[in-house]
Amino acid sequence: MVMKEGFKDLERPSEALSLFLGKCNPIDRIRSVSLAEADRRVAAEEVRAPRPSPPFRRAAMDGYAVKASDTFGGSTNSPIRISLVEDFQPSGGKAAPIHTGGALPEGADAVLMFEDAEEVGDEIDVFSPVAPGENVSPIGEDVEEGETLVTKGNRLTPAQLGLLRSLGVEEVPVVDRPEVAVIPTGEELVEPGTTPKKGETVQSNGITLEKYVERWGGNPHVKAVLSDEPERLNDGLNWGLEYDAVVFTGGSSVGRRDRLVEVLREQGEVLVHGVSIQPGKPVALAIVQGTPVVALPGYPVATLVDAYFFLRPLIAELLGSEAPEVKGRVELGRKIPSKLGRLSVVRVAVEGGKAYPIRVSGSGVLSSVTRSDGFVLIPEDSEGIAEGGEVDLYYWR
Amino acid sequence: MVMKEGFKDLERPSEALSLFLGKCNPIDRIRSVSLAEADRRVAAEEVRAPRPSPPFRRAAMDGYAVKASDTFGGSTNSPIRISLVEDFQPSGGKAAPIHTGGALPEGADAVLMFEDAEEVGDEIDVFSPVAPGENVSPIGEDVEEGETLVTKGNRLTPAQLGLLRSLGVEEVPVVDRPEVAVIPTGEELVEPGTTPKKGETVQSNGITLEKYVERWGGNPHVKAVLSDEPERLNDGLNWGLEYDAVVFTGGSSVGRRDRLVEVLREQGEVLVHGVSIQPGKPVALAIVQGTPVVALPGYPVATLVDAYFFLRPLIAELLGSEAPEVKGRVELGRKIPSKLGRLSVVRVAVEGGKAYPIRVSGSGVLSSVTRSDGFVLIPEDSEGIAEGGEVDLYYWR
Repeated sequence: MVMKEGFKDLERPSEALSLFLGKCNPIDRIRSVSLAEADRRVAAEEVRAPRPSPPFRRAAMDGYAVKASDTFGGSTNSPIRISLVEDFQPSGGKAAPIHTGGALPEGADAVLMFEDAEEVGDEIDVFSPVAPGENVSPIGEDVEEGETLVTKGNRLTPAQLGLLRSLGVEEVPVVDRPEVAVIPTGEELVEPGTTPKKGETVQSNGITLEKYVERWGGNPHVKAVLSDEPERLNDGLNWGLEYDAVVFTGGSSVGRRDRLVEVLREQGEVLVHGVSIQPGKPVALAIVQGTPVVALPGYPVATLVDAYFFLRPLIAELLGSEAPEVKGRVELGRKIPSKLGRLSVVRVAVEGGKAYPIRVSGSGVLSSVTRSDGFVLIPEDSEGIAEGGEVDLYYWR
Repeated sequence: MVMKEGFKDLERPSEALSLFLGKCNPIDRIRSVSLAEADRRVAAEEVRAPRPSPPFRRAAMDGYAVKASDTFGGSTNSPIRISLVEDFQPSGGKAAPIHTGGALPEGADAVLMFEDAEEVGDEIDVFSPVAPGENVSPIGEDVEEGETLVTKGNRLTPAQLGLLRSLGVEEVPVVDRPEVAVIPTGEELVEPGTTPKKGETVQSNGITLEKYVERWGGNPHVKAVLSDEPERLNDGLNWGLEYDAVVFTGGSSVGRRDRLVEVLREQGEVLVHGVSIQPGKPVALAIVQGTPVVALPGYPVATLVDAYFFLRPLIAELLGSEAPEVKGRVELGRKIPSKLGRLSVVRVAVEGGKAYPIRVSGSGVLSSVTRSDGFVLIPEDSEGIAEGGEVDLYYWR
């Protein structure tokens, strides 16, 4: 009854996560980067507008800059005629062509659209009056001076970079990417590029975690495979503690060889060991010398699920930001049954806008990940979800 | 009545897109990249498994390798006793410890879980029989030799990279990133880093498009701002035709200065000019000397909307792939009214899981983009969507 004894106090994943994140602190290393380097980075401070936008009264349409009162009373039957000039005269009684985005000249207070007038020699006939301010963007209409452009913790988007540029902001303070140590462990694992002998398996979680860490905003550092001996695990842990977070994969279960949790317990505090999620049960969350440590199971699919639930939010916490969203609502095309009392992870494929559970045979079946578009969760207090029910789909992206 | 004349044959956006993509061809430059470089790249060919996984019969649990028939009849009350050995003997009658993932020795055909037996000196008591094959992953259970791992056109994910690595595939053929020329145009625009004088605006669409092109899988090349003179536009077009696609921003309307479409018409075929979407109406789609050209409007928000609708799918078409998904289902927190006959783009902010339209005053209002999480579409044949209605939200990501 090894498994049951070891995991007798299974935590709900959400509670385990809160407990863990409560002991983690955002990193405080900040740097200023150019806009070209800032996409997807997390703003370390609020950024405010150094000037208003537009910085001058701007034509919102193509037409003529006019003094509105000069057009009052104009109609199709009884147009008002005013002179057409190249440069507007503040004295009034004149109209000057202006293009969308152009600065409204001193003394003008409206833009008369081309289609509301007709040129007659060096004059125009006004067919329709304009009100003061019509077709004009006032100073600061878009952004007022001092207005917040970017909030602390924002993950910057290309649209925001455009806004910053248009206001003359060319550098942004961003939080350093968290440095994340990734340590694959396992007696049977061999390095990529070697041909495995019988009983050996090529270490493949390293590249998966490396690329997800990048996608989630961290800087990954993947170590060569370690064996399961406590001395080796200790060496790995000490190497990893130089970074902002440490992720082990493999060796978090309570089997005979799974000594990692003991090693973590010796050097620090194991907050969680085992959560009520399937696959993904044997995860451990610890704080060692102030550094968060996530011990993921070795089975590829369990690794992935726990990385989504614990590593993704951890990196966001270190960045002082929200985790990048990976889920969307989708309708189930077929009923999914589930077991009461544990959170079930069901891999699904999306066809014609509906999600269908795919056939799998165990948490080690990595191919199922690439045949599915993501996974849905069946809550602990549910015996399943009926066809047509709506669920959150966590995409593999 | 300039605008109405110019755009009298407004196309539905989806029809405009089909017409345009029908004239574009995927690029045929392929290269082989290492797994470390392959994340998010598009597979140029199908990749098949060079060996099965697992490549040997593998223990699926920690326990003892046994011949199943040796355990038949064992029960808690009447256990069967067999000898415990370090190395399994094919002759039978023996049990040898084995770890999850280990190779099942020759002659063994099942794994007896630790908790179903008890060690008694150099023997074990078997409390429960196992069937042949129990707790064993047969060869090829996860992936059969020759099975498709990656389909042509797949955008590779970290999970797929792990699968490829575990099967010994270290290089993947990918489609070259489409080289995309981005050409900002406009008389009133000045380069980033310069302080705009009255009437001038800093060119900001360049960085927005540059970063979205990267996110969507292309390689952007942003040119310095061009004025609206036909000779300059021609120079820009000729420069752009060296790349796989050309994107102009600004100068696609039918105002007096908007000569870009004429320039495109002289050198190639303008398939679409003006679509029934607001904001975003004055977009033009052309093929010039075999190269797709997208002429986006200059107003930042209209630029963005049209980039989502036309540039994102174009890059996907060039890659021979699906466009990266940017939308999710969301419930409206407040009714959105709309005008019949045109597709309306409404910027919304998400709060408490519901989308609320934000107050905006024109397509030039870029700040609204950063205050919103994305936009929803109100179809042409609808007068709006009621509170509580479900819509697709296109996220700014």
